[in-house]
Amino acid sequence: MSQAKRVVLVSRPVGEPKASDFRIEEFAPPSPGAGEVLLRTIWLSLDPYMRGRMSDAPSYAAPVPVGGVMEGGTVSEVIASNNPGFARGDIVLSRAGWQTHAISDGKGLAKIDPKLGPVSTAVGVLGMPGMTAYTGLLDIGKPQPGETVVVAAASGAVGSAVGQIAKIKGARAVGIAGGKDKCDYVRKELGFDDCLDHRDPDLAAKLKDACPKGIDVYFENVGGAVFEAVFPLLNTFARMPVCGLIAQYNDTEAQAPKWAGVMMRNVLTKRLTIRGFIVFDFAARHGDFLRDMSQWVREGKVKYKECITEGLDSAPGAFMGLLKGANFGKQLVRVGPDKA
Amino acid sequence: MSQAKRVVLVSRPVGEPKASDFRIEEFAPPSPGAGEVLLRTIWLSLDPYMRGRMSDAPSYAAPVPVGGVMEGGTVSEVIASNNPGFARGDIVLSRAGWQTHAISDGKGLAKIDPKLGPVSTAVGVLGMPGMTAYTGLLDIGKPQPGETVVVAAASGAVGSAVGQIAKIKGARAVGIAGGKDKCDYVRKELGFDDCLDHRDPDLAAKLKDACPKGIDVYFENVGGAVFEAVFPLLNTFARMPVCGLIAQYNDTEAQAPKWAGVMMRNVLTKRLTIRGFIVFDFAARHGDFLRDMSQWVREGKVKYKECITEGLDSAPGAFMGLLKGANFGKQLVRVGPDKA
Repeated sequence: MSQAKRVVLVSRPVGEPKASDFRIEEFAPPSPGAGEVLLRTIWLSLDPYMRGRMSDAPSYAAPVPVGGVMEGGTVSEVIASNNPGFARGDIVLSRAGWQTHAISDGKGLAKIDPKLGPVSTAVGVLGMPGMTAYTGLLDIGKPQPGETVVVAAASGAVGSAVGQIAKIKGARAVGIAGGKDKCDYVRKELGFDDCLDHRDPDLAAKLKDACPKGIDVYFENVGGAVFEAVFPLLNTFARMPVCGLIAQYNDTEAQAPKWAGVMMRNVLTKRLTIRGFIVFDFAARHGDFLRDMSQWVREGKVKYKECITEGLDSAPGAFMGLLKGANFGKQLVRVGPDKA
Repeated sequence: MSQAKRVVLVSRPVGEPKASDFRIEEFAPPSPGAGEVLLRTIWLSLDPYMRGRMSDAPSYAAPVPVGGVMEGGTVSEVIASNNPGFARGDIVLSRAGWQTHAISDGKGLAKIDPKLGPVSTAVGVLGMPGMTAYTGLLDIGKPQPGETVVVAAASGAVGSAVGQIAKIKGARAVGIAGGKDKCDYVRKELGFDDCLDHRDPDLAAKLKDACPKGIDVYFENVGGAVFEAVFPLLNTFARMPVCGLIAQYNDTEAQAPKWAGVMMRNVLTKRLTIRGFIVFDFAARHGDFLRDMSQWVREGKVKYKECITEGLDSAPGAFMGLLKGANFGKQLVRVGPDKA
């Protein structure tokens, strides 16, 4: 076997992560001990939450230690097994992180059924991002027919699913994305009713035009300027599931939103619901999610797009790009071939 | 019949309401037309929400017009009736406002059953304030046994009920009130586990000591300094029903809370739920409320205190005092005798 490779965190980024915050190391491919399996990474998923793991600010999960392997979800192949639960050739969902090979005792591994779709979807539309969209929108946002749902990063893994599920539920879906190509894709391919460019200096006015009946559900995954544009348009009883604030992840100082002074007053007078969540809070909904979402994907009601970079070495650059919206679709790193 | 009296809004207050924002007028007692009743006010309820009605900022209800009679809930006696639904002598809950007499077509009047308790409780513990506490705490706050519930204005109509219901549900209740007498009452008479003085310059540190396991439910009815002290103590999955912001009602400029810059980040990482409501949102729960609350009052599990001023002329002053916490208990104006 050739050398294995991993990406370690060299330093906690201040502001935007830089290439020098990461180091690519070679290491001897590990051997599985008793009860363990050796995994080969096929797909590494890159997701905005990883910016949080690079920081030691308090959060719902511990940070990656400096010198440690970057965390991440992977689609991996079992290439050696001393664990009766897994056989060579099994494709599994794992938290193997940013590396070509990893050892696992089998805990937390989930076999992927290749019949449900391409295995990469296990970290995309049929995985954590898809389930984040599904549970946040349906269990917190609860869109009703005729209501208006707004979501940013609308061509991304979570946002694209949010808008398409909103349409399935009979709501009006308005996306926000970066640039004309993404907006065209969101409107024409994904079937959102409208999509606006967050770089448009006139975003607030255009969003108002795109939401003539106001906003009933704002699926918050970006924060920043989009939140500023959305907030005054929220209707009475609007719901705001909050799963991310990507536009603020690189902030070195906390920025109070423009609406900070009137926010609680609006919560009161409009009876808003603002609720933070992470996908694991809705673990009990995994069966419902997989049933509905795989059916919607098969029927063509939920489409998805992947943005693939090649080789583990590309991961730091791809991640830095993800935080700036350079990706177009679900960001994946092809670490190894589908079949070894 | 002697002259009738009413309090009209002369001007929209800037900051704290002043005596000159109100005018007391005499008027000829009106006569009920076909289908109408004439009401005599016994009790006028004074409540913090009235500050909102004096302002023309957007809210869930229209403002009182300048020159119009101040709005308010009353316990009134039917003293003449051309409406088959009401007889002379009926005691009704009405929105007759700040006046001694009013005409009603019967819509929105609810007969009060004097067997449930003193009729004044229909605008107190068995009325809107009690139901605000009941629905906000139980339907949004959802306190679990062993959790910690914090509420301010803890000797007031809403706060006192919140803490006592929290105790009934097995939670730890920590109140915040203004001054030693109120705090003693909240602890000793109402049975809260602790009560802190909001004027204490060390409030944040003392609140932390009073909530060794953090805060799971913060029933928000005041905003301001109490919110500042509470926010960093909120636990993961904490719930924050928001029914009022009395500490901010007289603000002439929107004040961003100290935590504004990190508020959404905390919503995300702690998966907080912040939800505004008004009692009318839970109208369907009125039967449950009346059943439970009247039983708890009869059993002595929920106690209440009334702060009574005499005569309609006292209403403006009592209301100005209410906004500063001068009242001790549910603020009522005795406009007329129980029996004419």
